[in-house]
Amino acid sequence: MALGSANGGFQGLLDGEPGFPGPLSGLISEGSGALREAGLRLAKAPAIDPATIEWLPPLPAPGKIICVGLNYVDHSIESGFVPPTYPTIFARFSSSLIGHGAPIRRPAASVQLDYEGEMVAVIGKAGRHIGRAHALDHVIGYSVFNDVSIRDFQTKSPQWTVGKNFDDTGPFGPFMVTADELPAGGKGLHIQTRLNGHTVQDASTDDMIFDVASLISILSEAITLWPGDIIVSGTPSGVGMARKPPLFMKHGDVCEVEIEGIGTLRNPVADEIGAAPARKALASA
Amino acid sequence: MALGSANGGFQGLLDGEPGFPGPLSGLISEGSGALREAGLRLAKAPAIDPATIEWLPPLPAPGKIICVGLNYVDHSIESGFVPPTYPTIFARFSSSLIGHGAPIRRPAASVQLDYEGEMVAVIGKAGRHIGRAHALDHVIGYSVFNDVSIRDFQTKSPQWTVGKNFDDTGPFGPFMVTADELPAGGKGLHIQTRLNGHTVQDASTDDMIFDVASLISILSEAITLWPGDIIVSGTPSGVGMARKPPLFMKHGDVCEVEIEGIGTLRNPVADEIGAAPARKALASA
Repeated sequence: MALGSANGGFQGLLDGEPGFPGPLSGLISEGSGALREAGLRLAKAPAIDPATIEWLPPLPAPGKIICVGLNYVDHSIESGFVPPTYPTIFARFSSSLIGHGAPIRRPAASVQLDYEGEMVAVIGKAGRHIGRAHALDHVIGYSVFNDVSIRDFQTKSPQWTVGKNFDDTGPFGPFMVTADELPAGGKGLHIQTRLNGHTVQDASTDDMIFDVASLISILSEAITLWPGDIIVSGTPSGVGMARKPPLFMKHGDVCEVEIEGIGTLRNPVADEIGAAPARKALASA
Repeated sequence: MALGSANGGFQGLLDGEPGFPGPLSGLISEGSGALREAGLRLAKAPAIDPATIEWLPPLPAPGKIICVGLNYVDHSIESGFVPPTYPTIFARFSSSLIGHGAPIRRPAASVQLDYEGEMVAVIGKAGRHIGRAHALDHVIGYSVFNDVSIRDFQTKSPQWTVGKNFDDTGPFGPFMVTADELPAGGKGLHIQTRLNGHTVQDASTDDMIFDVASLISILSEAITLWPGDIIVSGTPSGVGMARKPPLFMKHGDVCEVEIEGIGTLRNPVADEIGAAPARKALASA
């Protein structure tokens, strides 16, 4: 694994190299001081060719993956819902996460594979009953997520969980950008999803119904947030399901989610079929 | 922490004592051999006075906490739903878990605190695309859960997540009983919830719509199950919300969930108010 610096290209240290600061999860738990120190070390590290490394999710196993549905007015309407007065929260399991560049798997069970470009807020400081005014003190950084959804499974029951948790449907990364490098709350950033180079979602993070500060304040009325928890803050309009005709992803496609100032998360799409023998081996292991 | 043996009373070893076999999560990952060996060691261990120990959840941070809603016909009807044809799945975060004996917190935000007695199946062997015929090979043990729900928050949006994830609302334990000590699939067990000694839920695990084998088979069509994941398999009828008048839990109550052959999970109820200063300290830490 490598940690990269955005200072004009990729610099970093590999696991096992002298001075490697350890995984991001550990740095976040230690606080922003540890993260700043690691950043200084990485700024002096040698260049890395991004093609030679495997990108893992910035946090491969967050304590919580808190996802927000229906959080942009236009998407809420295209999905047949009235814009909500309380955030619609669902959860992902970390077993669904993949890194930048890894294939999104279209499962054998469905062809309704849909993209959802989203901004992630990463919690850096624990808290409960956090007032909105201080909520952004609890965010250590931002990242990019593709909340890939299996639409027919999402609506097989009143709860969306299964359709949001197929293996290999949670691209996350490539980077976490620290909060000090971005506008407060990740506000006003251009967010765009492209499928095979065509723009399919195009919005501003300003269009969120519940912004990051509100989400933290509302969620923490119920739930203690811990360092390393992530909030996946919802998708704008333009998802494949709402198009006429619907536009679903298929083997050979490439999906990109780009957020201004954070980065571009790019993943190919591949059918599960090719992966089936490995899965079967696991089942009988 | 202690591991107990059900051989007539409580025997066990405390963390730090010679021969302590480590936490249950590690034993499960190592496989049933390690668990069997630990059991033999515990059978020779000294007696423990259960009043002197703090009970943690058998698994304090499962990789997944997969909860099943509407999985008993009578409860599905009392909740206003048609009995489902596909399981209704939602997730808990481990931040909501508490052990046997710890207080269930009634939050400052709501008085609609409701009990739901449930059986837990603990996954012991990884797999995806698991056929129903072999599904129970993937279960290493069973336990007891009280899926305490904040009803008004559960229905503030189309997804139940927040109402199912308040801090200190997931009592789990006291034991995990290995699968070889119980009927296959935990079938035919008497499950009963009592509030202040009065029976409020009373059913058989046979009344599940999707039994444990079916749940594993259906879930693994989408999601790889890993050792230490848990499936919280749903609650029978009799919840407080469906009663006329509704029966919610309040400060000073005691709620027990008992499942035949597994154990009794007993928790007092306490208002969050008393805990508020600690929470506030956390928020500003």
